[in-house]
Amino acid sequence: MSLLYLLDLIGTAAFAASGAWLGVRRHMDLFGVLVLGLVTAVGGGTLRDLLLGDMPTFSLRNETYLYVAILAALIVFINRERFNFFEKPLLYLDAIGLGIFVVIGTTKALDFNLGFLGAVMMGVMTGTAGGVIRDVLANQIPLILRREIYASACLLGGILLVILEQSDVARPIAALLAATTVTVVRLLAIYYDWSLPRS
Amino acid sequence: MSLLYLLDLIGTAAFAASGAWLGVRRHMDLFGVLVLGLVTAVGGGTLRDLLLGDMPTFSLRNETYLYVAILAALIVFINRERFNFFEKPLLYLDAIGLGIFVVIGTTKALDFNLGFLGAVMMGVMTGTAGGVIRDVLANQIPLILRREIYASACLLGGILLVILEQSDVARPIAALLAATTVTVVRLLAIYYDWSLPRS
Amino acid sequence: MSLLYLLDLIGTAAFAASGAWLGVRRHMDLFGVLVLGLVTAVGGGTLRDLLLGDMPTFSLRNETYLYVAILAALIVFINRERFNFFEKPLLYLDAIGLGIFVVIGTTKALDFNLGFLGAVMMGVMTGTAGGVIRDVLANQIPLILRREIYASACLLGGILLVILEQSDVARPIAALLAATTVTVVRLLAIYYDWSLPRS
Repeated sequence: MSLLYLLDLIGTAAFAASGAWLGVRRHMDLFGVLVLGLVTAVGGGTLRDLLLGDMPTFSLRNETYLYVAILAALIVFINRERFNFFEKPLLYLDAIGLGIFVVIGTTKALDFNLGFLGAVMMGVMTGTAGGVIRDVLANQIPLILRREIYASACLLGGILLVILEQSDVARPIAALLAATTVTVVRLLAIYYDWSLPRS
Repeated sequence: MSLLYLLDLIGTAAFAASGAWLGVRRHMDLFGVLVLGLVTAVGGGTLRDLLLGDMPTFSLRNETYLYVAILAALIVFINRERFNFFEKPLLYLDAIGLGIFVVIGTTKALDFNLGFLGAVMMGVMTGTAGGVIRDVLANQIPLILRREIYASACLLGGILLVILEQSDVARPIAALLAATTVTVVRLLAIYYDWSLPRS
Repeated sequence: MSLLYLLDLIGTAAFAASGAWLGVRRHMDLFGVLVLGLVTAVGGGTLRDLLLGDMPTFSLRNETYLYVAILAALIVFINRERFNFFEKPLLYLDAIGLGIFVVIGTTKALDFNLGFLGAVMMGVMTGTAGGVIRDVLANQIPLILRREIYASACLLGGILLVILEQSDVARPIAALLAATTVTVVRLLAIYYDWSLPRS
């Protein structure tokens, strides 16, 4: 198992946990919590696969993603009374997962011969669309549209990756730099409470 | 016309009626009521077809589903003042449709060589995603995520079907048993007011 | 560049501006405003391409649509304090775009051999689904389901186009008549404040 795949699964678990936790806070039943965990974890990559036309979508071809997401959501549901122990480490795992997701989405789009903007969009979408679907199902305006720098971290990483690829930098190096950028900017944004101009 | 197809169309009409009825209660205009009926009736199967990669989606290849759904929604709109006469029988037809939808979705996923979890998910999604889209359009947290055993009935039926298929039980028998399980559990859940553990 | 393509891009810009403007009114940050502009502009055509199975979806194959939409949304964001100067002309451009979108969606569906109802639905969806996704992301019941004749204009145009095509009228003429019908009915509906029967 490659390091990338391991980090991908860790990110999947972290995303699923964040989705499940919103389900718990919204007083959903067990099924609802599992669904919210699942869509948060695999929603972004699924939407990317649909738009690119690569079906059955990734988690239907490799069900490991589904099992990991359901397991993580189940753990959150069972431990819902003591979730504050999880919250801080989860934020770090979530930031790592975000970097991996953006890199996977952007490189896949490049392999499908998308242009600059399309490739960046697929990367950002892989990292963020799961959370958007989660928020829509929980009946709230997606967090990412309102007050987080979350998306900008993805944008930066995606743009960097496409530029490096087009400059013939070897993919492993380009991927590592881009993923690290996303994760670090994300963590700095949390730490310093950065935000975008608002209307 | 096979019995399965007939029950499928009856389920389509029942789902469309339930969607249309939510549209009426939300004071939508005629177009909104028809759209809510349509998405409730064909939304689950459409999402399944997208994720599996079987396009144009089923109701675009056989428009009978579209005509049945629109007709059912129209009948609800016209008779909206006396809908309480419909409500009880609709619940039974809805439960029958649910069983058929789950069986159709699960077997189709197996035919696309999906694994255990993926096939069950496609079955559950075929039975429930239309209602989720309906609720999202009506701006409410999907009912199924909050307080119904609806999803568990689908899960049970889907799991039973995959196990039976993998045990080489003939498909018609497996399908009949699974559909009956979904419908009966669903009706029992309504009758005894069962629910899942909540957070 | 054909006239149709030019009008298509103008419609894209007008739709993006209307989406961005809702994002501004909902106090979204810059990223949220751009996303709302994008989904409003390309959401309908993207959903149509998914349902027909024509991927990568249109705006990933021709990124001009993405650039135009982002540019229009950006202009709205920058000029958000004086948007009332834009509002009236935008309504006209939006009506023109609506006609073009419906015609493009309907003819594409006919080229994919869809039947009458499916082709009309694809046309209506190309014109309206972007606005539906916009409203779902902004956490409100889609405007089109509640109190506008917007959808009826699309329906009329789509039906007219399919009938004309099936009567062997040359496509450019059929398209022109249908697009004009949508735009004129839409403008008349605004002017006379028409609405559908409500529940």
